[in-house]
Amino acid sequence: MLVVMKPQATPEEIQAVCDHIQQLGFRPHPLPGAQRTAIGITGNQGQIDQGNIEELSGVAEVIRVSKPYKLVSRDIKEEDTIIRFPGTNITIGGRDLAMIAGPCSIESREQGFACAEAVAKAGAQFFRGGAYKPRTSPYAFQGLGEEALKIMAEIRDRFGLRIVTEAIDAEALELVAEYADVIQIGARNMQNYSLLRAAGRKRKPVLLKRGLSATLEEFLMAAEYIMSEGNYEVILCERGIRTFTDHTRNTLDLSIVPAVQRLSHLPIIVDPSHGTGKRNKVTPLARAAVAVGADGLIVEVHHQPDKALSDGMQSIYPEQYEQLFHECSQIAEILHRNIP
Amino acid sequence: MLVVMKPQATPEEIQAVCDHIQQLGFRPHPLPGAQRTAIGITGNQGQIDQGNIEELSGVAEVIRVSKPYKLVSRDIKEEDTIIRFPGTNITIGGRDLAMIAGPCSIESREQGFACAEAVAKAGAQFFRGGAYKPRTSPYAFQGLGEEALKIMAEIRDRFGLRIVTEAIDAEALELVAEYADVIQIGARNMQNYSLLRAAGRKRKPVLLKRGLSATLEEFLMAAEYIMSEGNYEVILCERGIRTFTDHTRNTLDLSIVPAVQRLSHLPIIVDPSHGTGKRNKVTPLARAAVAVGADGLIVEVHHQPDKALSDGMQSIYPEQYEQLFHECSQIAEILHRNIP
Amino acid sequence: MLVVMKPQATPEEIQAVCDHIQQLGFRPHPLPGAQRTAIGITGNQGQIDQGNIEELSGVAEVIRVSKPYKLVSRDIKEEDTIIRFPGTNITIGGRDLAMIAGPCSIESREQGFACAEAVAKAGAQFFRGGAYKPRTSPYAFQGLGEEALKIMAEIRDRFGLRIVTEAIDAEALELVAEYADVIQIGARNMQNYSLLRAAGRKRKPVLLKRGLSATLEEFLMAAEYIMSEGNYEVILCERGIRTFTDHTRNTLDLSIVPAVQRLSHLPIIVDPSHGTGKRNKVTPLARAAVAVGADGLIVEVHHQPDKALSDGMQSIYPEQYEQLFHECSQIAEILHRNIP
Amino acid sequence: MLVVMKPQATPEEIQAVCDHIQQLGFRPHPLPGAQRTAIGITGNQGQIDQGNIEELSGVAEVIRVSKPYKLVSRDIKEEDTIIRFPGTNITIGGRDLAMIAGPCSIESREQGFACAEAVAKAGAQFFRGGAYKPRTSPYAFQGLGEEALKIMAEIRDRFGLRIVTEAIDAEALELVAEYADVIQIGARNMQNYSLLRAAGRKRKPVLLKRGLSATLEEFLMAAEYIMSEGNYEVILCERGIRTFTDHTRNTLDLSIVPAVQRLSHLPIIVDPSHGTGKRNKVTPLARAAVAVGADGLIVEVHHQPDKALSDGMQSIYPEQYEQLFHECSQIAEILHRNIP
Repeated sequence: MLVVMKPQATPEEIQAVCDHIQQLGFRPHPLPGAQRTAIGITGNQGQIDQGNIEELSGVAEVIRVSKPYKLVSRDIKEEDTIIRFPGTNITIGGRDLAMIAGPCSIESREQGFACAEAVAKAGAQFFRGGAYKPRTSPYAFQGLGEEALKIMAEIRDRFGLRIVTEAIDAEALELVAEYADVIQIGARNMQNYSLLRAAGRKRKPVLLKRGLSATLEEFLMAAEYIMSEGNYEVILCERGIRTFTDHTRNTLDLSIVPAVQRLSHLPIIVDPSHGTGKRNKVTPLARAAVAVGADGLIVEVHHQPDKALSDGMQSIYPEQYEQLFHECSQIAEILHRNIP
Repeated sequence: MLVVMKPQATPEEIQAVCDHIQQLGFRPHPLPGAQRTAIGITGNQGQIDQGNIEELSGVAEVIRVSKPYKLVSRDIKEEDTIIRFPGTNITIGGRDLAMIAGPCSIESREQGFACAEAVAKAGAQFFRGGAYKPRTSPYAFQGLGEEALKIMAEIRDRFGLRIVTEAIDAEALELVAEYADVIQIGARNMQNYSLLRAAGRKRKPVLLKRGLSATLEEFLMAAEYIMSEGNYEVILCERGIRTFTDHTRNTLDLSIVPAVQRLSHLPIIVDPSHGTGKRNKVTPLARAAVAVGADGLIVEVHHQPDKALSDGMQSIYPEQYEQLFHECSQIAEILHRNIP
Repeated sequence: MLVVMKPQATPEEIQAVCDHIQQLGFRPHPLPGAQRTAIGITGNQGQIDQGNIEELSGVAEVIRVSKPYKLVSRDIKEEDTIIRFPGTNITIGGRDLAMIAGPCSIESREQGFACAEAVAKAGAQFFRGGAYKPRTSPYAFQGLGEEALKIMAEIRDRFGLRIVTEAIDAEALELVAEYADVIQIGARNMQNYSLLRAAGRKRKPVLLKRGLSATLEEFLMAAEYIMSEGNYEVILCERGIRTFTDHTRNTLDLSIVPAVQRLSHLPIIVDPSHGTGKRNKVTPLARAAVAVGADGLIVEVHHQPDKALSDGMQSIYPEQYEQLFHECSQIAEILHRNIP
Repeated sequence: MLVVMKPQATPEEIQAVCDHIQQLGFRPHPLPGAQRTAIGITGNQGQIDQGNIEELSGVAEVIRVSKPYKLVSRDIKEEDTIIRFPGTNITIGGRDLAMIAGPCSIESREQGFACAEAVAKAGAQFFRGGAYKPRTSPYAFQGLGEEALKIMAEIRDRFGLRIVTEAIDAEALELVAEYADVIQIGARNMQNYSLLRAAGRKRKPVLLKRGLSATLEEFLMAAEYIMSEGNYEVILCERGIRTFTDHTRNTLDLSIVPAVQRLSHLPIIVDPSHGTGKRNKVTPLARAAVAVGADGLIVEVHHQPDKALSDGMQSIYPEQYEQLFHECSQIAEILHRNIP
């Protein structure tokens, strides 16, 4: 932490700040500059509340220096985390990109199988499908629950696809952890710390979506919650942030991909479906996500989007997904990555 | 819903859109204009997914017209909701403003009582204190849990203050509903729909904080979730939104107060502590909140903010709260409101 | 400036960063901490580009410490700037609040006089009216130009109101500086540095509106541009920022009022008309602005808003302005301020 | 325009709104729905101010339907605009991508030539370099002015590169239009309408950067200003928007590329340098921009970024640009585009 004094701060005020820091059990390092003095603080500062120092006489500003994340950081683990799926050679976080696709919600066995067949045919290795849907309206379709999980378990058996599905609360988590291969935590729950902790106690990989207004640090801290409980297999997912723009539902922030890769060893994938909310923008942004260096894509694909009970607007058709898959494979190659 | 056709759309394209709407079970109303045709849709449109129509040939745009909220709306109930507390003449939503104050977290019996004494002396009728704290870091102080709830129950007995405290998950909710007078749902959980539903099944008032990136409609829909389960006593709370600014932790959006009051019968209060994140801005913004017409204030007050285990930076001193209380009382009078 | 090294940075890397800083002509101060080393930099750092240091081996982050503003700052001038108008006892920035009101645009002599009469009657000391209008569409009404300035000069003579009007380019500035009492620089031109400099060479007060996406620092730096040319009479104006919200046209950020007052000696006023964009929200937010401590209000008032050629939607009626004036006067008194 | 009535609106209120619309000279179309009535308005609505209607009794909301842009729109001109440079086969907006590169500012003849040689060698066809710099601080380097323009004219002769440089005011515009091949209007001037009009009277292509908080509609309307004066050669440029994120200086909004291409015939390029503000993110985002379908890239390249007088932090090294160029060429091919 760094305390910046006002230019007109007196030596007594500077001394008083140093004394205060010492009383809190830390070490102050006054650093006189051309215009003003700054005071560095060393020692483990987990407990210092910068607001109180900011109110001391003569203080202009307090700047936090250390980052609060530990386990997610490359400081702790330099090499990339690679997540493996027992009994397969599928990975997330290595050279291969993870291609995850499927409908927003599982609406019926027929619909689930039709979508799964389409995405498997295109080459996807993971199937996504909602069993529990967090909907803005309490009157909208909320998912089929465990029935949907059972349908997806069948889909795994039939098509060899790994299953990714969202857990919206502690109860759903138990079932999702039982049936699925990857537990998804949705954007709206990114700071639902009870759910994060509970997911951290499971031994299945967790796909953590970035909250609509989450900073990079908050996003990494949410992953830290999961890891702090002992589950080190976390996959981050950029899915668009809320901004003033209105030509897309959210603004897909692709710059977070290299930013995460610089700070953290965890894999990061991109969701161009929620990231744009418009069918005609999914493929261009999917290509961009691969080009920026993402470790995979999660895409909503529906065999009959105009009849979808949710998110039909942003679901693409199977033939569009095949085209997307093909273009992304070619781009991945240029980056010396591979879509298996 | 309104479908806006492109200027160059052909009569056949317009007809095709009308046919499509009819097949979905609704009634199309073509509306030829100077430059382009628009098509109104009537019938209950809960299930129409505008995305599919948007992709039809000749369509420029689809505009949603009806609002999805029902129970929160003045369309259903014109007069203001007034929440009463049995055995007292305390209200929220009527002429009297609700003054809620107390520390971020309950840290000990001594600290809780010291804070409670201070806010009761200033005139507050409600005491806030965290038992379960949603913290960005898993390594930060997370609250005393049930022990804190017991301390607050004692505080109610001793000082006659109604207790407001946050429930962060289903488990905490059971205890909070038992011990407290008002169940708080925090900003990070505003779209934790499982928790909202569970709170809707309780028979205690719910204080619902606006999410950091929630639109007015999403905020009202979160209240709708609670009400749809039969709990009609919801108090909305503006606590700052996330914007690009950096001089405060959040941007307090006071304009939502008259906006809510126009659309909804529910009371809305303001939290200037989280809304600014800076002690020196709490009182000015508290005054502004009363002046804009808020139905109450929730303020963090700590008798020793520099020793607080959380949020010390934005907690004000008891004597500052007294000043705030005094100034706000005077402003309330000008608006023909009253701080009891 | 503070360079934060990575935890695993070697002594050689730390030394290399220190050497680099020294070569640039500054003094490095290594500051070893529990987990990592930070390096303070002293000397006049106007020219250091933090990006290059950030790319050196072992560097985690570079944090800028000193603020770039000088003349706007209380570091240079502690007491509040009070702007006076020769031949009157009108001030901006002192105990009296500046009440500025009038139509968005001057549309005709009749309309200008009708509006001026109304605001003068309510008690305003300043008249605002657009002669040059920056409109989003090139096809919308762009103002009457010099003709409007002449009408406003007559209004000053007739009603004793000081005139505030916007200059949108160098050419308009010459005329505005000649006819008006206060030169307004609009939000869209807040970073039009040529125009700021030109206004800085005039000897009339400048009302500088905050840009839609301007941080506090950028806002103060825009004022610094004007002052750097020798014009020290700058009035800042908050008029709403762009956020994700959609219930108002902009989000009025009232917290910037105390934030500016802490850092700068310049007066700051608030524009609740553009700040909300909705007639029914102007009065509540005007009250809030006075309650937060603003040094004045600029409000759009039109005697026939439904016939206004621009901004009718957010203009209030004369009788609404009288009510606003009355309520704000009472609130000002509580803060020991005065509306003359 | 569509007027949505409240559910409880009376037939008299509906009639009154229709009468009001008729008095304004337009045609109302009442559209009774299941829950509420909506009233469509037809006729040329340029002059209707929706605010006044919104205030009529019984009105819930007014929704604007028609878009205000004309000349920029594909409604007027369906095929893509292709900009040609006389005496060359260089184009912007066709199959070939425009590769524009060079330093933030021209600092000296030597520096300009060194940078130009580097980007020409990599394959760029356009050279960018600032002669007039809009800097946040009045005390920062502001560019060499006409001297820089002369250096760039020499660079064109020597390396065959077309010159792109920014005009910050009317005076600079005259010189830029004389010396350069493309007139750049910076993000901070996107709504400097006087400058846009003046650029519209020149007969050189204009590169228009998106403002930091500009919506798609405002961006297109700024282009409309230029075109309304008779200059149809406008190149749009996405360069990042302001959001709450802090891991990059701005958030590059790549989704605007397909959004513009759907609505407008104008070419759109991307600036990954300002769009991220960080050297290590320029290449990944440049690749993403080409993958999303942009018509070109404008990139800051400096032969000695650590000695640059401005923007060194986001300028890449010549060898990084070569790598970027190579990767982007390969991605362009996949999209059936070409980097010449």
